Amino acid sequence: MRPTGRLHIGHLSVIENWIRLQEDYDCVFGIVDWHALTTSFDEVEALQQRIREIALDWLSAGLDPEKSPIMVQSQVKEHAELHLLFSMMTPLSWLERVPTYKDQLQQFGAKGKDISMYGFLGYPLLMAADILIYRATHVPVGLDQVPHIELAREVARRFNHLYQTEIFPEPKDILSEVPMLPGIDNRKMSKSYGNDIPLSASAEEIKEKVRLMVTDPGRVRKTDLGNPDVCVVHVYHKIYNNGEVADIGDQCRKAGIGCVACKQRLAAKLEAILGPIRERRATLLDKPNRVDEILADGCLQARAKTAETMELVREAMGVRGVMD
Amino acid sequence: MRPTGRLHIGHLSVIENWIRLQEDYDCVFGIVDWHALTTSFDEVEALQQRIREIALDWLSAGLDPEKSPIMVQSQVKEHAELHLLFSMMTPLSWLERVPTYKDQLQQFGAKGKDISMYGFLGYPLLMAADILIYRATHVPVGLDQVPHIELAREVARRFNHLYQTEIFPEPKDILSEVPMLPGIDNRKMSKSYGNDIPLSASAEEIKEKVRLMVTDPGRVRKTDLGNPDVCVVHVYHKIYNNGEVADIGDQCRKAGIGCVACKQRLAAKLEAILGPIRERRATLLDKPNRVDEILADGCLQARAKTAETMELVREAMGVRGVMD
Ligand code: SF4
Ligand code: SF4
Repeated sequence: MRPTGRLHIGHLSVIENWIRLQEDYDCVFGIVDWHALTTSFDEVEALQQRIREIALDWLSAGLDPEKSPIMVQSQVKEHAELHLLFSMMTPLSWLERVPTYKDQLQQFGAKGKDISMYGFLGYPLLMAADILIYRATHVPVGLDQVPHIELAREVARRFNHLYQTEIFPEPKDILSEVPMLPGIDNRKMSKSYGNDIPLSASAEEIKEKVRLMVTDPGRVRKTDLGNPDVCVVHVYHKIYNNGEVADIGDQCRKAGIGCVACKQRLAAKLEAILGPIRERRATLLDKPNRVDEILADGCLQARAKTAETMELVREAMGVRGVMD
Repeated sequence: MRPTGRLHIGHLSVIENWIRLQEDYDCVFGIVDWHALTTSFDEVEALQQRIREIALDWLSAGLDPEKSPIMVQSQVKEHAELHLLFSMMTPLSWLERVPTYKDQLQQFGAKGKDISMYGFLGYPLLMAADILIYRATHVPVGLDQVPHIELAREVARRFNHLYQTEIFPEPKDILSEVPMLPGIDNRKMSKSYGNDIPLSASAEEIKEKVRLMVTDPGRVRKTDLGNPDVCVVHVYHKIYNNGEVADIGDQCRKAGIGCVACKQRLAAKLEAILGPIRERRATLLDKPNRVDEILADGCLQARAKTAETMELVREAMGVRGVMD
């Protein structure tokens, strides 16, 4: 995951998915700060802080660093070396035809930002290196990332073929279903819109954000019949209050519950989810260097894994070196 | 210099130029094996051997590792990291318009080899990293490399501007005049044509190569008047026997000297040049690990220099890291 800022409740299902994967797989989780530079090379001030923020978010949400390392890409230089070595044998056309490439160029272009850099073209190859350097067999991704996993497979295949080796397994994607959670104003949830509920929200902040949630605009008085299908609060009840959502919907339709009470019940549910996260965060922050220590340890573990792969890769490509 | 195989006498003037530069500058000499992969990613078997060969050639020719480090690019990983970081901020168009890019694609294409890889497009940027990581002020190059130095200057300027720093000086090229030395058959000198005189040639080999040199085809008998202007031997006399060349030319024109004698005089001159090189080579080979030790030491010195630059670069780009 790129360190693009504090996480919100919409990200939680991704991390919960990772926590489940920790049980069954030998995982590595990465904060890919070099990737952040592909589109933000000119806004680097907050990058260090964001790395710590996202690590704190993951750990607070329950990701367990005892079970699998959490590493910072820029601290495991082997990723850069493998990316460079892959670049020598990866056709330019493979990168030019990655679907997100032209899309993103246009999207950023429309916002007046030129990201047509050499590294932006190459970022799926950096991602392939990120994956293959751990000889990963599976990668949990969203639907938009599937073409990148396909590229990683192609790179693995070509490498194994060119150098007559079996260093790299071809990684499979694990598609996770992420429920689309709207922001409190019913737009896409985003920190930049201010319509998100941060993972780090205080009890007060949760109440306030829920209080501001957009409800059925046709229901002005408590006695008006409501339509939960056009209400953001109801979307949240569906996800976080599955046991009561049917009943709440019925009550809303016959004006048996008011919006204030409905929101209070949601706020209580969200507090039940975010409360423990907030507590873990407080515990982590109790020891000032705890997060840095966890990351440093994760990077060391990651380096041990990547060093092993790189020895094989260097040997295969004839750059093992007079010093090894 | 890329490790593309043993050097020949045609390369000597380049190395002699470096030896002069060692007197006046704080130099770093690099065997850029990653660059060799940009066009030879599929022929890597001999790469290790070629690295040692070229190092031995340099040292035999008199390059002094006590005065400046000789490093192997793939053993100084910081080059890969800086290349990656530069890639984030270097416009694709800068690389696409490097004159050698399309030329080389075509040249290799005509030989049936597709080198349109991502890394081949990026190799001038890797070269920029190779230069700028030492914060070099000057780079000795041939005329064909001048556009690459210009790119390095542009990258330095853009980096300094984006991150409001003065980390990188803009490097200047030192153009060295390299006399064009033909092969013994009057084609371009190349190991692959077998028409070269290796730096490592034995006394016998020198005599044999000179014996096979193409002379004035109009001069069949010793009594025929010769035309030194169409004779390869004479080209060599011009370069390696400046004191006698005028006289030899005159004698040739009036059949005052025979080709056998003329060639003997050249062979003696070449032996005077290559003999000491051969001796230094023998001394180096006396100690089996001497070359590896010199390279290992050079890489360590190079790493110390590059580590310093990279600290500044990481700080500037916000990826200094929780572990630094
Ligand atoms: S009662 Fe609940 S579901 Fe119905 S409109 Fe109000 S907030 Fe929305
Ligand atoms: S005498 Fe010397 S210069 Fe003249 S043709 Fe023979 S080899 Fe060449």
